[in-house]
Amino acid sequence: LIFILQALLSCAVFTSAQAPQLNLLPMPTSVKLGTGQLTIDKSFAVALDGFDDQDLDKTIDRFLLQLSRQTGIPLGARAQTKASSPTLVIHAQHGRKATQELQEDESYQLTVMQAGTELTAPNSLGVLRGLQTFLQLIGPTPNGFAAPEVTITDGPRFPWRGLLIDMCRHFIPLDVLERNVDAMAAVKLNVLHLHLSDDEGFRMESKKFPKLTGEGSGGLYYTQAEMREFIAYAHDRGIRVVPEFDMPGHSRSWFLGYPELASAPGPYQLVSSVEPVMDPTQEKTYKFLDEFIGEMAGLFPDAYFHIGGDEVDGQQWNANPKIQNFIRAHGMKNNQDLQAYFNQRLQKIVSKHHKIMVGWDEVLHPALPKSIVVQSWRGQQSLAVAAKGGYRGLLSYGYYLDLMWPAWRHYAIEPLSGDAANLSAEEKSRILGGEACMWTELVTPENIDNRIWPRLAAIAERLWSPASIQDPQSMYRRLDELNWHLELLGLTQRTGEIEMLHQMLGSDDISSLLALADVVEPVKDYVRLDTVKINDSSLPLNHLVDAVSPESDVARNFRTLVETYISGGYKDQNAALQIRERLARWRDNDAVLHPALEESFLLREAEPLSQNLSSVAAVGLASLDSLEKSEIPPEAWRTQQLSILSSARSPTAMLLLMIVDPVQELVMATTGSK
Amino acid sequence: LIFILQALLSCAVFTSAQAPQLNLLPMPTSVKLGTGQLTIDKSFAVALDGFDDQDLDKTIDRFLLQLSRQTGIPLGARAQTKASSPTLVIHAQHGRKATQELQEDESYQLTVMQAGTELTAPNSLGVLRGLQTFLQLIGPTPNGFAAPEVTITDGPRFPWRGLLIDMCRHFIPLDVLERNVDAMAAVKLNVLHLHLSDDEGFRMESKKFPKLTGEGSGGLYYTQAEMREFIAYAHDRGIRVVPEFDMPGHSRSWFLGYPELASAPGPYQLVSSVEPVMDPTQEKTYKFLDEFIGEMAGLFPDAYFHIGGDEVDGQQWNANPKIQNFIRAHGMKNNQDLQAYFNQRLQKIVSKHHKIMVGWDEVLHPALPKSIVVQSWRGQQSLAVAAKGGYRGLLSYGYYLDLMWPAWRHYAIEPLSGDAANLSAEEKSRILGGEACMWTELVTPENIDNRIWPRLAAIAERLWSPASIQDPQSMYRRLDELNWHLELLGLTQRTGEIEMLHQMLGSDDISSLLALADVVEPVKDYVRLDTVKINDSSLPLNHLVDAVSPESDVARNFRTLVETYISGGYKDQNAALQIRERLARWRDNDAVLHPALEESFLLREAEPLSQNLSSVAAVGLASLDSLEKSEIPPEAWRTQQLSILSSARSPTAMLLLMIVDPVQELVMATTGSK
Repeated sequence: LIFILQALLSCAVFTSAQAPQLNLLPMPTSVKLGTGQLTIDKSFAVALDGFDDQDLDKTIDRFLLQLSRQTGIPLGARAQTKASSPTLVIHAQHGRKATQELQEDESYQLTVMQAGTELTAPNSLGVLRGLQTFLQLIGPTPNGFAAPEVTITDGPRFPWRGLLIDMCRHFIPLDVLERNVDAMAAVKLNVLHLHLSDDEGFRMESKKFPKLTGEGSGGLYYTQAEMREFIAYAHDRGIRVVPEFDMPGHSRSWFLGYPELASAPGPYQLVSSVEPVMDPTQEKTYKFLDEFIGEMAGLFPDAYFHIGGDEVDGQQWNANPKIQNFIRAHGMKNNQDLQAYFNQRLQKIVSKHHKIMVGWDEVLHPALPKSIVVQSWRGQQSLAVAAKGGYRGLLSYGYYLDLMWPAWRHYAIEPLSGDAANLSAEEKSRILGGEACMWTELVTPENIDNRIWPRLAAIAERLWSPASIQDPQSMYRRLDELNWHLELLGLTQRTGEIEMLHQMLGSDDISSLLALADVVEPVKDYVRLDTVKINDSSLPLNHLVDAVSPESDVARNFRTLVETYISGGYKDQNAALQIRERLARWRDNDAVLHPALEESFLLREAEPLSQNLSSVAAVGLASLDSLEKSEIPPEAWRTQQLSILSSARSPTAMLLLMIVDPVQELVMATTGSK
Repeated sequence: LIFILQALLSCAVFTSAQAPQLNLLPMPTSVKLGTGQLTIDKSFAVALDGFDDQDLDKTIDRFLLQLSRQTGIPLGARAQTKASSPTLVIHAQHGRKATQELQEDESYQLTVMQAGTELTAPNSLGVLRGLQTFLQLIGPTPNGFAAPEVTITDGPRFPWRGLLIDMCRHFIPLDVLERNVDAMAAVKLNVLHLHLSDDEGFRMESKKFPKLTGEGSGGLYYTQAEMREFIAYAHDRGIRVVPEFDMPGHSRSWFLGYPELASAPGPYQLVSSVEPVMDPTQEKTYKFLDEFIGEMAGLFPDAYFHIGGDEVDGQQWNANPKIQNFIRAHGMKNNQDLQAYFNQRLQKIVSKHHKIMVGWDEVLHPALPKSIVVQSWRGQQSLAVAAKGGYRGLLSYGYYLDLMWPAWRHYAIEPLSGDAANLSAEEKSRILGGEACMWTELVTPENIDNRIWPRLAAIAERLWSPASIQDPQSMYRRLDELNWHLELLGLTQRTGEIEMLHQMLGSDDISSLLALADVVEPVKDYVRLDTVKINDSSLPLNHLVDAVSPESDVARNFRTLVETYISGGYKDQNAALQIRERLARWRDNDAVLHPALEESFLLREAEPLSQNLSSVAAVGLASLDSLEKSEIPPEAWRTQQLSILSSARSPTAMLLLMIVDPVQELVMATTGSK
């Protein structure tokens, strides 16, 4: 046992030691770094010496285009060749499945040598993954663009690594989905889960039931032709598209066109506080769903089909005597039993159309076959119960991107921890992976990239890389590098923020607004959503809180700097200088920014925030003065400073000032004791 | 006469006085500002009370989408209504032409009142222009998004206001053209001239002659279906698409597939220093062109058809005895006469296919009919000669965006100046306007937005607004504001630069590189192009010079600050403080940047530039010290400083350091005399 522990430890040390040199994210299973490097210039050429098909040729074309964008070296189709001295030789043993399968092999081996690179994989899906690793290795060096000599053996830890996007609360156009698919592929995610129907909108065209989008979408939906093209786009990049149609709850949008499916007579409206539910007691509901699911099963090739099943509001069922009679007549105890009955019927329909049913925690019920997959928003305990019961599961608890958590917090969420840690190996194997969730009540096409990236990449690493890869510092360093790579792919998480700041300031010079925006974060969890009574997509999301990044890199780096200074016993002059410069800039920012905030109704709410930044920075400067002079100020002074910080800590304009904590560390350090 | 002059003067003064309050670009013919404002919120609605058709409905949908992006207020199709209290009432008397015509009325009148806005125009083309003005009026105010009360009467000064894009030297994909069309529409330009063939590539699919692109495009061309869609896209935005196929010179790419058209036997290659020319002495050349132009005339609906005709290299003609015999046999004096003969034959073909021929200066010849249009790269003198001869003309001289001139220099180029100023009114009316030219020898899809914008907007104002609108300061103020509006339209002139800087630094933190990039400009005119021997699009354009903006806003603002400080007799403490802050930052930048430059082969060439920035800033700080202390340093000191500046003035890495001149002003000010 001690040997194993030692082996594990030395492995972790090895990885951690190599990490500063390579910007790989997710970190591969095994990385052996050499000393030389492979130069990338306009003679770059790719050759295939194993399996070859049109899919693989397209993959290589896309890879060359991406390499071209990344280096500025024009590499046309001519770079794909069977030439005698190719820079990159790809050997796949066979092709991919026409419809990507769960558990399809994604492993690869990449050997970069001075003379050239070899990428081998059992199939062309592994090639896709390996090419992304190769792209991450390439950067400018003193001797040209190059990749370091390295031998990488890699494969995913979990077979299901996904992102859910909710296009119901706010519609997300396909071009936005496409650029997010590009970014998902860059971090080796493999499932995009489309939350296609909910109370607020029905987003997928049905030809059999045209009123679903005709009445229930406000004109915002995907046509079947568009969706087919999008699925092919995602497939090209190694990403499965799993559709979700949420039922029997979260289904108001269905009832605008088909009120007869609901448990109470309509009419229904998209913007409303009513949460109607399907009537599971009438046969016509199942007849409708059979036809609808049959149609969708033909459109979406993936083997899995998500039926939602979460948060069923029992009010309509309670209020409908016919439904209550049905419950009693069938010997059911309550609404939960009724939902289980519905799910059994639904599962048979899904299965009849050759799909495997996926649902949220609530669908778990002994009456359902072991083939279904449970997606858990509740946590590892719920997953463990499912796995023990023989069901497969996915973790989403802890991966909700709309909660505005920092990346390290998502990063620390381990699917096989808590109750799941005590499962048998076989039970553990039923935990297929996880899915991050991007619910869009407060998210629009303008800021969705900013809400997803780069934090999703930390979750991608958790699901792909060995469990031993856990160092948040290394993760953040690699995340920062990845972030601009993603902008090169067309993502807008940083440029979009800048455009929004311009828009709300109505002016060209946003520097002082950006200085404020860079040190604040949106309030966490559901604090903001709880203030919005009705989910109405016509609510403008054009405030500062909508623009700023969920996590402040500037504040994070400032905190590191302060901690370095304090832990070094206040001797690090360079750290002190940098801290002082930043604090001085923050202290003086409000004088410039304040008049501009006055001029915009959108920004006036941020005035106290800007003032707080100034006062907190002043507190920091005073503390730094004391520390540099080795003075210990009186306790009363400290109390006063802490009270300033305490009031600056309360949310203003739904934003948190993120330099308060590190400044408090400076104040506390003035006591002289450590 | 005095009354008229007074009226003109007071009008100019009025415009100039109002300018600081309105960010309109181009400035309308007449602007009368009121005192109230119209609020824009989610109740915003548009109504049509005059002519209505599908085209106008689409126009309004696009307007609403743009307003939505600009404000963050979701405005769906529901905002287009015949409601009782619309925010904007549009009255057009009739529709647009199915193919937009030169001289088609673009005028409109816009009246913004607190209670609502009226936009009236003779036709829906004027509505397009007026909506762009309305969008520019809207911004955040203390009381919400709003437009000021204003009455605007507007129409263009010149009917042909264009941009040429060269897609031969570097291929420019259609999505890049589309976003540029959006930006052109925002500044009321109305012609996109596509330079579709040149030595380096043939970019338009011909079904009759498939080898034109099959052999002559390297796979980079537009299909006819794509072009039809693109023309419709441009038409929707009020922009004519004029195709150019350059002949008989600049035509190497034709000869890869059809060497029999050339004046010497092939074979030919795309990348080459040979400049072959068509053989105008053989009938098969005209038979080919008749069929080709017939096909293209069917594809491009515009009435005008550009045949190039510039810079014919006579070498092949001189070397071919058959051609020289032809010249003698037909009583011609020289190659120019032969080209005139070719153009006459060509003009008949173009005319037979119901198009009006356009060509560069060189086509002007008395043998050609007055219907042709001459595009002048040579200047107003050439235009004046054409106009006197009864020909219509377009100015491109002075509007070459590839020369990297600052916006004010383009802005000062007046089509009706020089020899053209002395023309009669009738002759002047033959000068139709102008076209900016974006030649792409050193331009790629990555940096083309940066090369075109925002400078093109200054040319757009010159061609649309009254000649009296001339204040460069006002222009720059409005240009700065426009710049971020353009990024909202999807342009990348600023974000693209940032991505390229990341790419060449290979690192997340580009702040010190950006500080350098912000104060340099690419060398002007053909200095850089002259160093590239053969025009080869496989040459990587990934250096600092390729990323930075053609004009440094930071240096321009710094110069203004220095001039304010000097002209105020060194008393403006605030200006002095700002100058000092900037100089100190620049002085200290190299210490941080230098090690990073060392790490990238692309950036090592910029090391002396970064050092120069530091030395020049130090000179500036020393001068500022003297000025603040009212000391007059010895002449020898000044000589030494000027010598530092002099050596920092020479181009480094094809870049110019733009703070040298304002720092020199500080040095010179230390003499004490003014």
